[in-house]
Amino acid sequence: MAKENPKTCETEFSVRDYELDSQGVVNNATYQNYLEHARHEFLKSIGLNFNELHRKGTDAVVHKVELEYKRALLGDEKFVIQTWAEQQGNVRFIFHQNIYKLPDREPVLIGKVTGVFMNNGRAIRPPKEVVDALT
Amino acid sequence: MAKENPKTCETEFSVRDYELDSQGVVNNATYQNYLEHARHEFLKSIGLNFNELHRKGTDAVVHKVELEYKRALLGDEKFVIQTWAEQQGNVRFIFHQNIYKLPDREPVLIGKVTGVFMNNGRAIRPPKEVVDALT
Amino acid sequence: MAKENPKTCETEFSVRDYELDSQGVVNNATYQNYLEHARHEFLKSIGLNFNELHRKGTDAVVHKVELEYKRALLGDEKFVIQTWAEQQGNVRFIFHQNIYKLPDREPVLIGKVTGVFMNNGRAIRPPKEVVDALT
Amino acid sequence: MAKENPKTCETEFSVRDYELDSQGVVNNATYQNYLEHARHEFLKSIGLNFNELHRKGTDAVVHKVELEYKRALLGDEKFVIQTWAEQQGNVRFIFHQNIYKLPDREPVLIGKVTGVFMNNGRAIRPPKEVVDALT
Repeated sequence: MAKENPKTCETEFSVRDYELDSQGVVNNATYQNYLEHARHEFLKSIGLNFNELHRKGTDAVVHKVELEYKRALLGDEKFVIQTWAEQQGNVRFIFHQNIYKLPDREPVLIGKVTGVFMNNGRAIRPPKEVVDALT
Repeated sequence: MAKENPKTCETEFSVRDYELDSQGVVNNATYQNYLEHARHEFLKSIGLNFNELHRKGTDAVVHKVELEYKRALLGDEKFVIQTWAEQQGNVRFIFHQNIYKLPDREPVLIGKVTGVFMNNGRAIRPPKEVVDALT
Repeated sequence: MAKENPKTCETEFSVRDYELDSQGVVNNATYQNYLEHARHEFLKSIGLNFNELHRKGTDAVVHKVELEYKRALLGDEKFVIQTWAEQQGNVRFIFHQNIYKLPDREPVLIGKVTGVFMNNGRAIRPPKEVVDALT
Repeated sequence: MAKENPKTCETEFSVRDYELDSQGVVNNATYQNYLEHARHEFLKSIGLNFNELHRKGTDAVVHKVELEYKRALLGDEKFVIQTWAEQQGNVRFIFHQNIYKLPDREPVLIGKVTGVFMNNGRAIRPPKEVVDALT
């Protein structure tokens, strides 16, 4: 498993009943909602405003998602998502995002989300301020 | 119950398993997703392009939603939504939207969605082309 | 507007970006998810365990939803839902649920959710412990 | 890319406006909803009833999801999901699920979903009828 780094951000959640499916567990797709919210909180925590980057013409786009499910979350359970970033080559970033049930930090999901920076529809080397902030 | 009119549009759906909640029935909120999709299909059926109206500065905004639940929908069930519109005063439209289970057309939900037309943040009398098309 | 009572429960939320639709505002259906979560938090706050009631054969079922939208919520906004209950006749309860944007408490949505207690598919007078706890 | 097989199932969808996010494209998590629905349609197409297997004590559980996003889907676009299965070792199945935009079949997403069969919480070799039907 990839090593977290000093900028690792932790975001806490509670399962809401409408996120459960007919098996009484959090639906598999819902974890991607959780991860997206945690990535945006991570970005805020390192001072990046992607809406502002967007207005300057730079967008971060999800290219690949790899999720390994370790344990289902049930109603009322609390959990934390750890998020940190790692540069990969010139144009890609990997967001490592692991979910742990609280309070015992039992692993729930090991996630890797690869993002690409785009400008006018083409993959670009991300601006230096972004590279510096992310890693 | 309000009387449907000649422009009534019928949109068919099947329940998808991810729409079920932990009671094994379609979650109450999901019906509003169904109704929104059926309203947009209704608008297309009468030749209205609300994205185009939006570009001209006119927006339709949901002001009130009244839903009466008659019977829960289960996994794999098929249903139809009937949608038609009725003008109310100068600035409002009521969308009547009823859901019936198929094939027996057993009532599932009786819905009334009130919309207001807005221009630059103020309620306006909707354009004549809209009034003519809707009713 | 109905008057709140001493058991009124307040639940705080933040808008998550995946809850926004293509207009950049919280989708109309998403408010019903918020309200469901706030009702369940309200029930916990008054010591009611509806899963336990369910195991004893009593279910609370949503019969009617009336929502008046006052103002759209945008990305990153914080809000609070006030929930309280009122008995209506022998078999129904009304859950009053109002949403206010924080920190200024500007009204976002005025909601009324009518629930019925069911036992083996028939509406029943709710158990005394439930009536006493709710109001 | 893995080769499809004779049991490949095609399921057609249209994007619904409530599935779009604030960028005006289908939200990344929504693709997992689409894939789940297409897997269940695939299972029906080969005569498997997983609810029935569940009642006999055998469950299929998602263990890993790998998604490569090729192109965003926009409002009103139509698409098809191709689903087929491949056995992997004794206890796992890979569901290959690719999404193509219609009518030009431009690739949208290349997906691999690994499932495990469980009985009373332990991974098991799936029943012979399941193995025979899936591949």
